[in-house]
Amino acid sequence: MLLSIPESEVYERQKVFNDRLNENGVDAVVLFSPVDIFYLTNFFFSPTERPIALIVDPNGKSYLFVPYLEVDHAEEHALVDKVSSYPEYPGIKHPMEYLKQLLKDIGFENKQVGFDSPGYGSPAGYRGPKIDRLINAKSFISVQDIVPEMRAIKSQNEIELIKESCRWGNLAHRLLQKYSAVGISELEIENKASAEATMAMIETLGKDYKPHGETAFALFRGQVGKVSAFPHSVSQNAHLKKGDNLVTASSAAIWGYRSELERTMFVNEANKDQRKYFEYMYQSQEVAFDHIKPGNPLSSVERAVQDYYKENNIEHLTRHHTGHAIGLLFHESPFFDLGDETIMQPGMVFTVEPGIYVPEVGGFRHSDTILVTEDGMEMLTYYPRDIDSLICT
Amino acid sequence: MLLSIPESEVYERQKVFNDRLNENGVDAVVLFSPVDIFYLTNFFFSPTERPIALIVDPNGKSYLFVPYLEVDHAEEHALVDKVSSYPEYPGIKHPMEYLKQLLKDIGFENKQVGFDSPGYGSPAGYRGPKIDRLINAKSFISVQDIVPEMRAIKSQNEIELIKESCRWGNLAHRLLQKYSAVGISELEIENKASAEATMAMIETLGKDYKPHGETAFALFRGQVGKVSAFPHSVSQNAHLKKGDNLVTASSAAIWGYRSELERTMFVNEANKDQRKYFEYMYQSQEVAFDHIKPGNPLSSVERAVQDYYKENNIEHLTRHHTGHAIGLLFHESPFFDLGDETIMQPGMVFTVEPGIYVPEVGGFRHSDTILVTEDGMEMLTYYPRDIDSLICT
Repeated sequence: MLLSIPESEVYERQKVFNDRLNENGVDAVVLFSPVDIFYLTNFFFSPTERPIALIVDPNGKSYLFVPYLEVDHAEEHALVDKVSSYPEYPGIKHPMEYLKQLLKDIGFENKQVGFDSPGYGSPAGYRGPKIDRLINAKSFISVQDIVPEMRAIKSQNEIELIKESCRWGNLAHRLLQKYSAVGISELEIENKASAEATMAMIETLGKDYKPHGETAFALFRGQVGKVSAFPHSVSQNAHLKKGDNLVTASSAAIWGYRSELERTMFVNEANKDQRKYFEYMYQSQEVAFDHIKPGNPLSSVERAVQDYYKENNIEHLTRHHTGHAIGLLFHESPFFDLGDETIMQPGMVFTVEPGIYVPEVGGFRHSDTILVTEDGMEMLTYYPRDIDSLICT
Repeated sequence: MLLSIPESEVYERQKVFNDRLNENGVDAVVLFSPVDIFYLTNFFFSPTERPIALIVDPNGKSYLFVPYLEVDHAEEHALVDKVSSYPEYPGIKHPMEYLKQLLKDIGFENKQVGFDSPGYGSPAGYRGPKIDRLINAKSFISVQDIVPEMRAIKSQNEIELIKESCRWGNLAHRLLQKYSAVGISELEIENKASAEATMAMIETLGKDYKPHGETAFALFRGQVGKVSAFPHSVSQNAHLKKGDNLVTASSAAIWGYRSELERTMFVNEANKDQRKYFEYMYQSQEVAFDHIKPGNPLSSVERAVQDYYKENNIEHLTRHHTGHAIGLLFHESPFFDLGDETIMQPGMVFTVEPGIYVPEVGGFRHSDTILVTEDGMEMLTYYPRDIDSLICT
């Protein structure tokens, strides 16, 4: 059972990345994005106020620039030529002063320097200068899309990890549905379902399983009852009532790879209105599935779904586009959106989740994770979608 | 029992914020930081690729700029004068085009415009222009430190919420220690302890509890056995062995407020070496506690700890500074660091966590959450710190 990305594939990614830098006329590069650094080095870490950067010098030699507390950890795991460090943030001398010296020492001056963001960014109290203050480069070239574009096309191994994620998200969701009952709080149901699914997952996957993220979970994030009409509610710790709309979410991280499974469910019973809106939601998802084809732009899927909304006069009940790419992050580009002309290609993995939100009734959204194939799509999530299977009793 | 920040306190924060803007010569402001927006509006949300901004116009009127999917949610919870929205990201027309129009309409042109970051930032695939491309301002003034500086001094209510967090982190940790035994995997122990503590927490706190973050948890994040010598390891799903060093962490979010409790523990027994390094760690934390006094700079605490390291010839075994502020985020500025001259003030809350890391032996770190008081400090976490209490049997 595959539970991680082999090192050979990471080296292959590095080669592709370097080729893309050359194509873009970039001599040397500095990347700050934690997820892109993990993708290119296999070094998974917890970002904090202390900057971490991946550097490729003009000779193609790679460096991981880390705080001293990460040196041993990086040397054990990071697939780079060299680990370089600074003492601490804020430190007596700022980390960016160390980076400045390193970049100078390894030949960044007067070069075409690529960067993914103007500087290190963190909500955890970091403050520091932008990269163009550190080096006398010939020019600076943004390369922020190179790695995200590579990440958008999943390899066979990545797809296997996402499928493994689907299995455990499915179990967590099954248990969430099982424990959803009148009078029980959403936090209790989530906690019970997530813990039980995680236990089964750990026992099954064994010692080689490294989550690099969340173990199996399922939750409502507050979409219980009428509040389910807020597409991105947050936990309200509501207690379930008979007839409540529920909108759920479940997943599990496998070596950092995620899937997304969401369902609209009902406590004990669904009334006529709820059945009507459920059917619209169900059919809009079908429309989306029918329009997923390699070679077409992502906007074509959104357009078809919006046409369906208009034909049925439910456009005023919709609040967001149809879906997003998913992989190492829950939300990645590109998007099933009217403004996204990216062409669908085999290997892309997306959520498909058109939603309908009816004030004073509730929210209606399924999300499935799908793979774009040579001639259409493959459903990776496999939880029942029909209403009869989704009434909690 | 206090489980949220009263609205009156949020309005008070807004008043202080507006006063600080005036003092800085700022006429109008745009903030993108999710945690600062929550602090100033009580609107807690899940940041995605869709930008959200808090805006205060030259007349002091406040706006929350949100994607359409957050409108109802924001209108229900956000303490602002008006909610303004855009359809979707990326959308046919980019969200920043809507923001541009809004800022023009509400009088941002030719004004001194404050901002907390040059543009909206998100790892989730967002791309967009910087704020200085949107408005013809008289000038742009960074105000990124105003709210973080306000957040650094906790009110009585904030301290109460952090104390509540300590209670449930303590229970989760107690259970983590109880379930730590030879042959059991770290993920299993974490899962069992966290789920059981969360269940007790939900039952105790009742319906008014809104986490706005993680429910009670305790974990090792991979610091098991020799790997505990990596200060920021990630879960390795290791199975505990007799004599293993363990470094833990536990907490719980109460309305978004966190505490931090970490302990060095041992499986069944600690050998002479482990006891020796534990004692150094224990004493270095005592040194830090002794030096926490309002009126002194944070660097004085770090200096005292580093002097202790030097006196005992263990400087080469240390990897990071002594601690960080904590509140709505686990890591906040300022820091117990040689380079941080911020003056300690009553109401500041910090972690105190000097660490010692011995290759081929393990890591040694306790973290306690403390409050700076009028004449010293108050310990908010209260788990036993002595070695005899921390041998798992």
